[in-house]
Amino acid sequence: MSGNPTYAPPPGPPTSCGTCSHLTEGEEGNSDDEAQESHTRLISDVKDYLLTHGHLLKLVRFETPSRVPAVGVNVSCRPTPFPRHLFQRATSLQPAMSELYIRAASDDDWLYSVLRPQIEGEPAGLLASLWDVWVKCREASVVQSVSCAIVRSDYMLHAEAEREAEAELKQVEMNTFSVAGACHAEGVANMHRWLMWKEMAEMGNADTSRSSFQPDRLPSNTNTSAIVSGLSAAHSHYHEQFPTNGPKCILMIVQPFNFNIGDERPLEYGLLACYRCEWREVLSRCSMGSERELFYSRPGDGRGKGSKVFEVSVVYYRAGYDVEEYTEESGGTETRLMLELSRAIKCPDVKMHLIGMKSVQRALAEPGVVARFLPNARRADEVMATFMPMLPLDSSPQGVQARKLAMDTKLAVNYVLKPNLEGGGNNVFREDIPAHLSRIPEENWERYILMRLITPPISAEPGMLLTSQEVYEGPVLSELGVLGFALWRDARQGLTGQDGPVKVEIIKNETLGWTFKTKPIGVDEMSVVKGYGCFDCPLLT
Amino acid sequence: MSGNPTYAPPPGPPTSCGTCSHLTEGEEGNSDDEAQESHTRLISDVKDYLLTHGHLLKLVRFETPSRVPAVGVNVSCRPTPFPRHLFQRATSLQPAMSELYIRAASDDDWLYSVLRPQIEGEPAGLLASLWDVWVKCREASVVQSVSCAIVRSDYMLHAEAEREAEAELKQVEMNTFSVAGACHAEGVANMHRWLMWKEMAEMGNADTSRSSFQPDRLPSNTNTSAIVSGLSAAHSHYHEQFPTNGPKCILMIVQPFNFNIGDERPLEYGLLACYRCEWREVLSRCSMGSERELFYSRPGDGRGKGSKVFEVSVVYYRAGYDVEEYTEESGGTETRLMLELSRAIKCPDVKMHLIGMKSVQRALAEPGVVARFLPNARRADEVMATFMPMLPLDSSPQGVQARKLAMDTKLAVNYVLKPNLEGGGNNVFREDIPAHLSRIPEENWERYILMRLITPPISAEPGMLLTSQEVYEGPVLSELGVLGFALWRDARQGLTGQDGPVKVEIIKNETLGWTFKTKPIGVDEMSVVKGYGCFDCPLLT
Repeated sequence: MSGNPTYAPPPGPPTSCGTCSHLTEGEEGNSDDEAQESHTRLISDVKDYLLTHGHLLKLVRFETPSRVPAVGVNVSCRPTPFPRHLFQRATSLQPAMSELYIRAASDDDWLYSVLRPQIEGEPAGLLASLWDVWVKCREASVVQSVSCAIVRSDYMLHAEAEREAEAELKQVEMNTFSVAGACHAEGVANMHRWLMWKEMAEMGNADTSRSSFQPDRLPSNTNTSAIVSGLSAAHSHYHEQFPTNGPKCILMIVQPFNFNIGDERPLEYGLLACYRCEWREVLSRCSMGSERELFYSRPGDGRGKGSKVFEVSVVYYRAGYDVEEYTEESGGTETRLMLELSRAIKCPDVKMHLIGMKSVQRALAEPGVVARFLPNARRADEVMATFMPMLPLDSSPQGVQARKLAMDTKLAVNYVLKPNLEGGGNNVFREDIPAHLSRIPEENWERYILMRLITPPISAEPGMLLTSQEVYEGPVLSELGVLGFALWRDARQGLTGQDGPVKVEIIKNETLGWTFKTKPIGVDEMSVVKGYGCFDCPLLT
Repeated sequence: MSGNPTYAPPPGPPTSCGTCSHLTEGEEGNSDDEAQESHTRLISDVKDYLLTHGHLLKLVRFETPSRVPAVGVNVSCRPTPFPRHLFQRATSLQPAMSELYIRAASDDDWLYSVLRPQIEGEPAGLLASLWDVWVKCREASVVQSVSCAIVRSDYMLHAEAEREAEAELKQVEMNTFSVAGACHAEGVANMHRWLMWKEMAEMGNADTSRSSFQPDRLPSNTNTSAIVSGLSAAHSHYHEQFPTNGPKCILMIVQPFNFNIGDERPLEYGLLACYRCEWREVLSRCSMGSERELFYSRPGDGRGKGSKVFEVSVVYYRAGYDVEEYTEESGGTETRLMLELSRAIKCPDVKMHLIGMKSVQRALAEPGVVARFLPNARRADEVMATFMPMLPLDSSPQGVQARKLAMDTKLAVNYVLKPNLEGGGNNVFREDIPAHLSRIPEENWERYILMRLITPPISAEPGMLLTSQEVYEGPVLSELGVLGFALWRDARQGLTGQDGPVKVEIIKNETLGWTFKTKPIGVDEMSVVKGYGCFDCPLLT
């Protein structure tokens, strides 16, 4: 039996749906009541699904010693239409997209030529620190030529004059470091499958049990097990390289107070030997062996069980990307250097981190660059076709031209200004660009790139989103992220930068899965954690 | 990448474990640090496990249209020792225990004789209302002779002089209506298996993958699928009885604003056709057919999809037990009567609800009663051996004796006073009994029973509990609940009470699984929702 003195219901009618009156306006009678009831029920189904499946964000501010409250992630209540052929193109393109970034990251000279203005422009900045970590690794000679990465390429639909029929796939950005969202994306895809199954069962049209229900219009999603397989493959590869008897583990480097634990823990649950180590604890918990083995010391329990030392096979970064993590007091640069110098396989290594900068994305879009790194001409063309025009804001002739464009309010409306150091949340849009730039010394403009705005077609069907603020009903836009995993060997072991042409042996390169996020139209950023974007599932059309 | 403006971490060191200083007192040096670190890590592992697996309670008071916060259920961080042979005895005893209650509930004369003082003493009370529902059903003649039930028999260890070696199994109570806790119990059992696997893997002793890890000392738990199977069997049985073509469904009758959704939704997810209907909506959503079929009308979506009518195969009650649900305004009695009169299989029917009263538990403990209902003498003895002495507080000679005992502070210390209308939260313990009774008119004393207190042996190993208030470390006590499912036919179809001997055909009767709750010693109540008891897993010894 239950009974609840602590969390009593609020008096009066249910609070759900009090603010979402869209459906009750301008409609009458029974269908109006039904619509409202069906709406309330759908929201309740969605809220409870997230809660009972752990797709939540911790409210870390309210954590007590024994408890931590949490709320569901932002979510779309209905799957959002997306063209099937473009979904398929994006997923099949992923190995080529990953390969482009892997080969470009291995070309030291090219990479340095792209990053140099920012490194020299801000010698104490994060980018310069990361480059310096790489230079030190190179100087110490590289003891682990194998790297792996989990990447995510984000796309939106783009249509000139917003005509849906002619929509193309355009890349928003490429994420190469500490990629998040995979676990929630899978959970929300499962939720939409459940909701559709329920709907069909209700209408008497479900001819299968729920577990075998795989509707053609909702693509399957097995992100979590796919990432677990990728990391396990890297772990096994390390063990083949160094078949020592001692215990080995994957080390997940994490941020403290992480509210997004629901996107990390499921990977740990799936892995055989994976321990979490906070970024700030790395220097005290880890040490380097005589052959640059990375050892992780797992403390005992103070009750008889002693501490235990593991050799780290794979360093899996879910931390180490915030500027604050690299301040002098934090010891962040030292932390990063230790991890990178070690012979553990990094997921990913520092160069794969550096290649995620917006200035690299821009440089890759220059004519001839993709073809240089991707031997297959057809694949190179397909990758290139997803790029929007991008301009540097540096002192090159192209850059000078772009600066004029950016300061012209009439022309700037077609652009987004992106800071070089990874996107999301700090972008400046359209007519805000000139005012923003005028507040910054001109010598710092080269820390930004200018990207032509993607103009997605407007879907005819309104969306229904549960955000942290409201139940939104109205037009929506979606972003498809394609997850890839790769494991490769840089064949120039001990390379110095003067070793000649790039030589990369790709051991594994596959599409892992996908994420799909939807936001209200008129909101520029897709960030889920900032409350705009919502996890969703494509309804293939 | 992540980044969190809304839920920023609190400044300063982590708040976890700020209040639990047990381990840092009186210990020094490295092992102290290790103990503290291992302790912090265990709590973090447990909190995150609950969160990522949905073992949460909704904070319904803070629900907004788009969100609902939740917190983990109370939980024990380590499994608590429990004697293997008593665990096995309790689970193997369950079919006999269920059979006792089923046969007793079917004996109208006996049941009325037990409940009569309370019915007559409080003619407007819930018990009298429920009996009246049954009388009306009988008068209308019963159209569904088959019933089913999910029951839970709760036990504690009892040892005279608290000697563990001689511990016996004693029944605390039998829950026959709207039994909760099964899903959380399964999740917490899985959590303890994961924690043990992790511990063993760390020490290099896990020779199996996590999914096939089934340690001998932690009993397996498949409560959710077992309940789903039970309800599905009842659904199939109904379909065999009435093989009509129209769609059929299981109707889960639920309370509004239920914070404990994590214990209901998983059952719905597992069932083929199960809809939730709030208690207060039953009269508007349901109707009765010409052959007393119960029809449930599922509303359309107001956007073209019309409403759909289902014939209800099984009424599964997760509501309908609170006095407030039966007030005149609530229409609760009418609701209950409609459901009970229908030809749907009730899980459970009103007599199985009535048999859960404490006065029945007491009456069953009287000499000869168990033997009367249980034909197998050995099973009857085993069941009887789990009963603590119980006394009525009525006007019988035994009751008069018990009244004296209850008012004697010295003698009352060995007793608990339980209100007849199901326990949990309203019990009065030991020396508080005389004062409590003296505030109640003597003619109302018969609404209580007096039960000899179970005195469990004190475990040598301290427990570690996360309750809503604190991290508790210290001595603990556990309660084992054994879940049973039964499906039976009352062979006296259309019975009037004068039809002679009880004739029950038991179709299915099995042990479903178990729950296990642990509380700090010194706390009398085991209620999880009130913040005392914690879900746990037995460590079989």
